[in-house]
Amino acid sequence: MTGSVVSPALRQRVRDLATPIARGLGRLGLTPNALTVIGFLGTFVASLAAALEAWALAGVLVLAFGIFDLFDGALARATGRVTKFGSFLDSTLDRTGENLLYAGVAVGCHVAGYGEGVIVAVLAMAFASGVTYARAKAESLGFSAEVGIAPRSERLVLLALALVLGGALGGIGPNRPFPDGVVIDPNAIVRGGTTPFLALMGAIAALSAITVVQRILHVRAQSREG
Amino acid sequence: MTGSVVSPALRQRVRDLATPIARGLGRLGLTPNALTVIGFLGTFVASLAAALEAWALAGVLVLAFGIFDLFDGALARATGRVTKFGSFLDSTLDRTGENLLYAGVAVGCHVAGYGEGVIVAVLAMAFASGVTYARAKAESLGFSAEVGIAPRSERLVLLALALVLGGALGGIGPNRPFPDGVVIDPNAIVRGGTTPFLALMGAIAALSAITVVQRILHVRAQSREG
Repeated sequence: MTGSVVSPALRQRVRDLATPIARGLGRLGLTPNALTVIGFLGTFVASLAAALEAWALAGVLVLAFGIFDLFDGALARATGRVTKFGSFLDSTLDRTGENLLYAGVAVGCHVAGYGEGVIVAVLAMAFASGVTYARAKAESLGFSAEVGIAPRSERLVLLALALVLGGALGGIGPNRPFPDGVVIDPNAIVRGGTTPFLALMGAIAALSAITVVQRILHVRAQSREG
Repeated sequence: MTGSVVSPALRQRVRDLATPIARGLGRLGLTPNALTVIGFLGTFVASLAAALEAWALAGVLVLAFGIFDLFDGALARATGRVTKFGSFLDSTLDRTGENLLYAGVAVGCHVAGYGEGVIVAVLAMAFASGVTYARAKAESLGFSAEVGIAPRSERLVLLALALVLGGALGGIGPNRPFPDGVVIDPNAIVRGGTTPFLALMGAIAALSAITVVQRILHVRAQSREG
């Protein structure tokens, strides 16, 4: 993807690594579309974990099912079962699943009493979904819009990192006692994971908003050439 | 739109009414794309109003800028300035603007201490954006997906109604005193607007989730024919 920090060579290498695992899943009787649906359900579980403030678990699940998402396409290519419906299903459930992740994070931040967290999570969802929408809409009109600094893989890495750091560094939000009465650092105003979480989630929202603008300008440039 | 509760005849009549107003705005020197951007900024103001718990104002603005959104296309058609870029810009900013409305509602519910409200608002955003994404992605692959019970105009009417009723019936969320100390009904556990708000927002989320599934099945049926 133009402008992405992940090079096409690295992307190809990851795909090569995914193929044998995908073939193995296929030998278990799973179809590419079944893998797509399993990945969506896994992402939904990650979203529930975030809503329950199980931040680090949510982050690990985001990463695990982000990687799992490679297998449906890899299995389809390896077994000659690439279909337009499969591509549509994968894209639509990826889109909805990523939305549900930000939704879970927003709910978890609400439960934690952390308003800034609610704000960055809903802005991340609003702009990230604008990014993927812009590309699909552009392609439906015959334009391309595969540009921008915040495609999905980069957003999911930032999200996983935000959640793992948020959880591992003592949680997210105001430093209220945990239900068992434990206060990790009685002198802190916010829990230790709050600042890295806010910075990384804020980065997703800001980079996504910039990417929406990049894609609009990219389509405008094509329409002026045409 | 197939399955929509708004008939094509009504839709056409609304368009006919919009044309003279749109021409008037054009005579002020405004281009169709300028109207698109103004509508987006207005929607953003509605979203801020919701975030500040100015529910009824937010609802009125949603309705006003929902109607205003008719004028960009009407002006473009009336003056022969329909472009693919204009269509792309309109769709992308409509999508992002609707997302920001749900984001604002979620933040307002957080401020009101109303967790159920946060949940329905983020689910509405997650599924509503899945609905429009599914259609754009389907069309980019040569399918159609203009089906489903919750297209954008219906969602915006439900959202405006949820906000206006929520505000007019005494606010949304737990019945805590207002900043000036006023408690509208000291015997109520939640403010009077809470239940209609929750029901209507829940309807947006549920109908949108159903529409995503309808569109997936519609595309699958087409791919089996093809």
